[in-house]
Amino acid sequence: MNSWKVYQETHKERFLSELLDLLKIPSVSARKEHNQDMVICAEMVKLRLQEAGADWVEIIPTEGHPIVYGEKIIDPTKPTVLVYGHYDVQPADPLELWHSAPFNPEIRDGKIFARGACDDKGQFYMHIKALETMVQTKTLTTNIKFCIEGEEEIGSPNLAKFVEKHKEQLKADVILISDTSMISMDTPSIDIGVRGLSYIEVEVTGADRDLHSGVYGGAVANPLTILSKMIASCHDQNNHITIPGFYDDVEEVSLEDRKKMAALPFDVESYKKDLTIDEVWGEKGYTTSERTGIRPTLEVNGMWGGYIGEGSKTVLPSKAYAKISARLVPNQSSAIITEKLIKYFTEIAPPGVKVVAKEHHGGEPYVTPIDSKGYKAAAAAIHDTFGKDPVPVRGGGSIPICSLFEKELGVKIIFMGFGLDSDNLHSPNEKYDLQNFYKGIETIPYFHKHFAG
Amino acid sequence: MNSWKVYQETHKERFLSELLDLLKIPSVSARKEHNQDMVICAEMVKLRLQEAGADWVEIIPTEGHPIVYGEKIIDPTKPTVLVYGHYDVQPADPLELWHSAPFNPEIRDGKIFARGACDDKGQFYMHIKALETMVQTKTLTTNIKFCIEGEEEIGSPNLAKFVEKHKEQLKADVILISDTSMISMDTPSIDIGVRGLSYIEVEVTGADRDLHSGVYGGAVANPLTILSKMIASCHDQNNHITIPGFYDDVEEVSLEDRKKMAALPFDVESYKKDLTIDEVWGEKGYTTSERTGIRPTLEVNGMWGGYIGEGSKTVLPSKAYAKISARLVPNQSSAIITEKLIKYFTEIAPPGVKVVAKEHHGGEPYVTPIDSKGYKAAAAAIHDTFGKDPVPVRGGGSIPICSLFEKELGVKIIFMGFGLDSDNLHSPNEKYDLQNFYKGIETIPYFHKHFAG
Repeated sequence: MNSWKVYQETHKERFLSELLDLLKIPSVSARKEHNQDMVICAEMVKLRLQEAGADWVEIIPTEGHPIVYGEKIIDPTKPTVLVYGHYDVQPADPLELWHSAPFNPEIRDGKIFARGACDDKGQFYMHIKALETMVQTKTLTTNIKFCIEGEEEIGSPNLAKFVEKHKEQLKADVILISDTSMISMDTPSIDIGVRGLSYIEVEVTGADRDLHSGVYGGAVANPLTILSKMIASCHDQNNHITIPGFYDDVEEVSLEDRKKMAALPFDVESYKKDLTIDEVWGEKGYTTSERTGIRPTLEVNGMWGGYIGEGSKTVLPSKAYAKISARLVPNQSSAIITEKLIKYFTEIAPPGVKVVAKEHHGGEPYVTPIDSKGYKAAAAAIHDTFGKDPVPVRGGGSIPICSLFEKELGVKIIFMGFGLDSDNLHSPNEKYDLQNFYKGIETIPYFHKHFAG
Repeated sequence: MNSWKVYQETHKERFLSELLDLLKIPSVSARKEHNQDMVICAEMVKLRLQEAGADWVEIIPTEGHPIVYGEKIIDPTKPTVLVYGHYDVQPADPLELWHSAPFNPEIRDGKIFARGACDDKGQFYMHIKALETMVQTKTLTTNIKFCIEGEEEIGSPNLAKFVEKHKEQLKADVILISDTSMISMDTPSIDIGVRGLSYIEVEVTGADRDLHSGVYGGAVANPLTILSKMIASCHDQNNHITIPGFYDDVEEVSLEDRKKMAALPFDVESYKKDLTIDEVWGEKGYTTSERTGIRPTLEVNGMWGGYIGEGSKTVLPSKAYAKISARLVPNQSSAIITEKLIKYFTEIAPPGVKVVAKEHHGGEPYVTPIDSKGYKAAAAAIHDTFGKDPVPVRGGGSIPICSLFEKELGVKIIFMGFGLDSDNLHSPNEKYDLQNFYKGIETIPYFHKHFAG
């Protein structure tokens, strides 16, 4: 097995430089002006898969951004691993908070700083380099398929149709995803679940135009005040969510499982220090790890209205907007929660304003069992390279497509992520530690070895 | 007196074209990038005053934007009228809501559409054209001084010092301001008061960086949620303002005066129709006119935080901001209310966030008596040109400098405004009716005539 390590050591500089090239492409799926960058990025992923040794690679158009499919079939009787990842990234703003340009990757203190460094270019690229390693060292013992999409950050609106249509082509024995994090390099962990997502945008309209706040203020409803009241009403004093029926389908986690979670290493003081906050916040009766792992949440992701420029303007705005999303836990349905959110915001609108709430993307929660062949292979691989067993944890993020994959392809998903919670995903100064990148490339071949049995 | 009308009819096209030139200069005092435009605008005002017949005009620098001072002294023993106005304008955004470019004035349906058309270029320019009329027709019976400043829309931060320093130069028997509106051309009115203003900006900080809403959401305070709760808490169910002590110094208007106000023409159905709202909003126990005239108000003028671009981003923002202002009525002090607002927002901040509230500009409320020589001259002038007596009303807007003028110069202020509430002041598509512009120019010489006695 040492041949992997030797090969990777020899080529590590090139691996990194290829990743940096990939990070230079501003493949922001949410913004139309980057549509051309999305195509360029897909082309680069295709090329890298071909170079790594895939024997069939194609770019498959969708109604949105294209999907890159690749495969290396060594023997149809061997187990097949389907690697899922995404080459699209979140928007980079607010740009002024980045210490280096988001699409001009910079290495500082052994970390790659760039939008997409960890989420998910740096992570799916480990799989391409692991493929290359196994091909070059002639040690590949599984078939590998790649499905690298370009719309994960906007809710994978076209992936379901793609998976349904290409069921046969995507057929595999396990789905392997590196798009999550581990507790730390000292405490490797495997996510056994991702949360679901409901995402809505609320528009509140008062008068049909911006008004002078002196002439009309106090006499005409202010959409910002109304929207603030609506948002304020979504959590009670204990930070429970007040949307009617929100918790109806929530899976209650057993006391035993909660005890296990509580035993995991978590230092609230370091957590607070890392974020520069003097207190954590959240639903009464639950710990910080539980709040982000086993409980659903509701957050305002953006809000705006009126005059937001320099100085002051005495305006009574016509419109106020908010982007609001909920993270969902097992048994909650994204469609049902989205409907409840839209209903809530529409119905609590007082006279004097009009409210329109529309749906952005959603996704279902997903939990994977820890007694599956895939989980065991991942745990063994991590043990091989980290020297200790990984702990299973519930992740807070969402990968919208998971439940669909399981339903359509009938196999389990393994989340073998090498990021860290502190990697600033979706934030300015997103990073990925070089050691995590290399450790991932080192660990993945062991997964294939163990999965092949 | 007919000579005025004849002169004005002859030159009306030029009067308008000169105003349009003035409106083409984007003299936005709040934005540093317009500093050069401010200087250009001051130069044009100076030139027009000279052409109109002022015998001394100068541009006086301040620490901010310059003040244009001009005078025509015919006889030191005659009464002196000090005309105050401002050549600066509000920012024009949101630009996309304008039907024509804000600084490319367009005449549609007999109205001038441009930022500043009514507030205040179109209005102070009437006084320059009235001066020209009286000079050319040799009918000037008062001394006239002009003080046209460039910082009204940002709270006149340098005018107090200027007035103190130039007390002797500004000495007058009355201050005449056209920067307010009348009920309609059918129901001419004179504002007998302006409200005061307190303006603050609140910044709420949670974590020191934007976070992934899946990884941290529900466990770390969201500044947008917190700020929404703060804003929601500022009004109770009856839309009374809840800031402690906010109403302490409010002058209660007598039932008799309220009855007089109620007798003024006001049609709530037309009001709602004009604004496209299904219901008015405001403090329980008061009519719409009272809410904007005799009661203090609190409005959110702008609010922002998190992701406000196209599509969706699952971010837990680090910062949330709001611009919040109060309109004040007689006996309330801008400094005291500002202090109370800052204290309120700072003190209600829950653990987990930091709040910084800073002061923007403010101004004191002002009410002028209706038995003064100035008021009587204005009422008589309006009667001369409108054929009916004006009704005295309390205006909702603010002219920060009024109380200072009275204190320093020891004379009353007369608000002889020719705008309409529907002129979209501070809003997209600001307008000024041509007939109001010309009616103003026609009326002003009568004011001077009556004031001269």
